[in-house]
Amino acid sequence: MNVLDTVKFDAQGLAPAIAQDAETGEVLMVAWMNREALSRTIATRRATYWSRSRQEFWVKGATSGHLQHVREVRVDCDADVILLKVEQEGAACHNGYRSCFYRAVADDGETLETVDARLVDPASVYGRS
Amino acid sequence: MNVLDTVKFDAQGLAPAIAQDAETGEVLMVAWMNREALSRTIATRRATYWSRSRQEFWVKGATSGHLQHVREVRVDCDADVILLKVEQEGAACHNGYRSCFYRAVADDGETLETVDARLVDPASVYGRS
Repeated sequence: MNVLDTVKFDAQGLAPAIAQDAETGEVLMVAWMNREALSRTIATRRATYWSRSRQEFWVKGATSGHLQHVREVRVDCDADVILLKVEQEGAACHNGYRSCFYRAVADDGETLETVDARLVDPASVYGRS
Repeated sequence: MNVLDTVKFDAQGLAPAIAQDAETGEVLMVAWMNREALSRTIATRRATYWSRSRQEFWVKGATSGHLQHVREVRVDCDADVILLKVEQEGAACHNGYRSCFYRAVADDGETLETVDARLVDPASVYGRS
């Protein structure tokens, strides 16, 4: 069966997509895909998401240059989550970190602390002050 | 700020949680957590999810023995996705695979093919025929 017909998109027509570094295994980010975003991702090998806030397609890195070259597309057993193995250019996170998951729960079990180093200055990428 | 107050749960009170093998980086599964599931996960260091289908808490491996020992809990930049780095006993997938993401899109860009080997017979774990 075609992957586009297999994936079960939710009531909003969306499924979460995880981007994972194909080399290191680092989980970089999670965004959302509709059927067309998944189709474009497979066809172009550039990770393409659906922006829920902007209600538009979003080629990751189109603005920042931090493209995700897709090496493999996987689907989970329930076919409601997508996993992309990608070659990430630069930082996946708009805050300038390689991965969006740069904060971890501290040993006290309560506090969130930043555990990764910033890769780039976000202002240099998006021109924000 | 306390992690439980930082995480933005959705309208159903849920956030997706990714379980990743702490050693290999393999993405094992995605399930859902509410605030209490996250609190229990942090307190017990056993991955505890909220089952949307059964509407109950679900300690991963409580039935199968395939527990997830939580080494680290991370949160993404938008604080709406949780990442657990776990030590997985046995198979994370109820179909007997180490990871739920055992299928990949083939070179034709359409077909889903199984690319991982089954680790255990699911019938031996859950007693299904």
